[in-house]
Amino acid sequence: MNVVHIDAVESGVAAAGGYRGAGVACGIKTSGAADMALVVSETAASAAAVFTTSLAAAAPVTISRANLARSGGRARAVVINSGCANACTGPDGMRHAQAMAELTASALGCPDAEVLVASTGVIGVSLDMARVGRGIADAARQLAPDGGGAAARAIMTTDPFPKEAAVEIAAGAGRYRIGGMAKGSGMIEPRLATMLAVVTTDAAVEPALLQRALASAVADTFNAITVDGEPSTNDCVFLLANGASGVPIGEDGLPAFTEALRAVCEPLAVAIVRGGEGATKVITLRISGAASDAEARIAARAVANSPLVKTAVHGEDPNWGRLIAAAARSGAAFSLDRASVRIGPVELFRDGRPFDERAPEAAEYLRAADVEIEVGMGTGSSGRARMWTCDLSAEYVRINAEYRT
Amino acid sequence: MNVVHIDAVESGVAAAGGYRGAGVACGIKTSGAADMALVVSETAASAAAVFTTSLAAAAPVTISRANLARSGGRARAVVINSGCANACTGPDGMRHAQAMAELTASALGCPDAEVLVASTGVIGVSLDMARVGRGIADAARQLAPDGGGAAARAIMTTDPFPKEAAVEIAAGAGRYRIGGMAKGSGMIEPRLATMLAVVTTDAAVEPALLQRALASAVADTFNAITVDGEPSTNDCVFLLANGASGVPIGEDGLPAFTEALRAVCEPLAVAIVRGGEGATKVITLRISGAASDAEARIAARAVANSPLVKTAVHGEDPNWGRLIAAAARSGAAFSLDRASVRIGPVELFRDGRPFDERAPEAAEYLRAADVEIEVGMGTGSSGRARMWTCDLSAEYVRINAEYRT
Repeated sequence: MNVVHIDAVESGVAAAGGYRGAGVACGIKTSGAADMALVVSETAASAAAVFTTSLAAAAPVTISRANLARSGGRARAVVINSGCANACTGPDGMRHAQAMAELTASALGCPDAEVLVASTGVIGVSLDMARVGRGIADAARQLAPDGGGAAARAIMTTDPFPKEAAVEIAAGAGRYRIGGMAKGSGMIEPRLATMLAVVTTDAAVEPALLQRALASAVADTFNAITVDGEPSTNDCVFLLANGASGVPIGEDGLPAFTEALRAVCEPLAVAIVRGGEGATKVITLRISGAASDAEARIAARAVANSPLVKTAVHGEDPNWGRLIAAAARSGAAFSLDRASVRIGPVELFRDGRPFDERAPEAAEYLRAADVEIEVGMGTGSSGRARMWTCDLSAEYVRINAEYRT
Repeated sequence: MNVVHIDAVESGVAAAGGYRGAGVACGIKTSGAADMALVVSETAASAAAVFTTSLAAAAPVTISRANLARSGGRARAVVINSGCANACTGPDGMRHAQAMAELTASALGCPDAEVLVASTGVIGVSLDMARVGRGIADAARQLAPDGGGAAARAIMTTDPFPKEAAVEIAAGAGRYRIGGMAKGSGMIEPRLATMLAVVTTDAAVEPALLQRALASAVADTFNAITVDGEPSTNDCVFLLANGASGVPIGEDGLPAFTEALRAVCEPLAVAIVRGGEGATKVITLRISGAASDAEARIAARAVANSPLVKTAVHGEDPNWGRLIAAAARSGAAFSLDRASVRIGPVELFRDGRPFDERAPEAAEYLRAADVEIEVGMGTGSSGRARMWTCDLSAEYVRINAEYRT
């Protein structure tokens, strides 16, 4: 564990030096809410990204992946529209996503390969490119160092609140910042709840190192959240590093940089869960005693996505039987005789024996909005994992059943 | 495909010759509803079973598996209590499950190894063996050839209705019957919704052949349903064959027998989905164009358990984007350019192109209580699978969140 002094600072995706942001309304959303976001680095930045693994990846995902390869891991800008996912839109969709990159490049005077593109919203509907063009032009005119908040609001869809985080880190004689924004209601794919995140830093980091740091930070943060176990066709996380702080990050500095990056990604990821569709509680789930960390992650995913676990927490019911059952069916090694369940500070099951007399204490604990649950797999090994999930409420059903009506 | 003439007949698990059933109330359920079921063959029958794959299998599962091995695949009786799952109950639980077998054996005058045991209900609570003993004695006294219905009612927990099915098959000069009962709200593990099924036949089938027929029939029926993707600690399906019809089933007759068995298992399985917690619609999901049947089953499971698909159907929303997204993230091979979605008779997506103008027609179709959905994976191969699932309603959340209150 690196000891890194991290100071939280205000503002989000444009908090680091040399970045500007903007968010405008261009009519893609019929509500008239902001629907076009632009994040720009004053100079070409190193860039890294992780994308959805869906085999129905949306056109902007394909274009961003291609542009990152064409530019050799450099980017000047990220352009994001909300209100239309540009997914399942065939060849037209690819042309539209590439046109978003070209329009942004021409507004900024940079190669189109240096523009990353993302979209979130309705699947199967084509972008109105007249509106998109107007939106990109307006956003480029409004770019400002304090425009991160506007950008964060312009990428929202069903999100109940915008998600921003930023930190400042002392590194030798210098200081650098990492800031970010995110949207989405989890690893969830309704037609309006893609997970998107853009993180920027003014540290100088080569693309290959940047990608390693991002992959590592994402594994413990954005990839450790779930609302309903549904990855999107449009999920992506972008990370830009423009070096404006003058602080270089090499191989030696990478662990500290990754830790600082995680300190930005984690609150963004948890905020996505907190704003999950219908969510009333954030659950921090820990799996311990698994055969390996990989097995612990398998069990964590099964428990975190279990509708019975999620409805029990919604009902503030310390139903340890459902936790045991979900862990035991996860496919990960599990030994009932040595398994354990803890809800907050209350141990409810250990070594095959329930402590039901403690249920009222655990029920009282579950009344909080933030709850912690630990399931011990009892294998005798020490594999561990942590995930964040939310409860499952009737409101989730209402949102997703009544979406079109 | 075998052409087997199958006639539906009345009554369920005791419809075949040489079986009797009973169901009584012995006070395990505080409601006073029936909670002890007994199914008995007049002579020792061949027996086969499939059990939960949960690593936290309940005590009765362990005991039944052991008894089946001890008896060499013979059984006289199945005894089932509802209201208490006898799961996560440690060594006491094992003693109680074995005592259920012994009490039943002594009431019937058979070896305890010839008794199969199942329980369904609350996890982590011990059986009250005084009540269990009284219940088994009462049930043994009330055994009757027309007692299948009482048995089917006594195994219910949150089930809104009992599930029974029976058929009669002409085989050469003779006729034999297969009948069964089931309970449960799907492959679901709340503390009251284990899936249990008991099927009996008066055909004569050796245990090894019987197990093959059961495994085959279960794969397409009980293993092809889901309510919320949660297998239980207590799931089991028992099949008894006592030969009372005088019709022997050998290797040659096995395909026809298996088809007849499937004709009993399928309506029982679909009835479990229809009675799923909070369910208002039964969805027959077909996956086609997958790389293999195994890949088709993987995709089917992902789509059938998708909360977004299930809420969309609940809302009668022909949201083909959610179907594509779930299939594309399932892990099975998928090609968006050649994929397709059909809701009832309405094709909404084909070869990368949506037909949104047909959405109103599909929405009208989704108003029915029984709906069919097909997703083509577009791989160019012809792998297929079928699953039954139900919609996800706010009532499901209410049932599972408010269970203890």
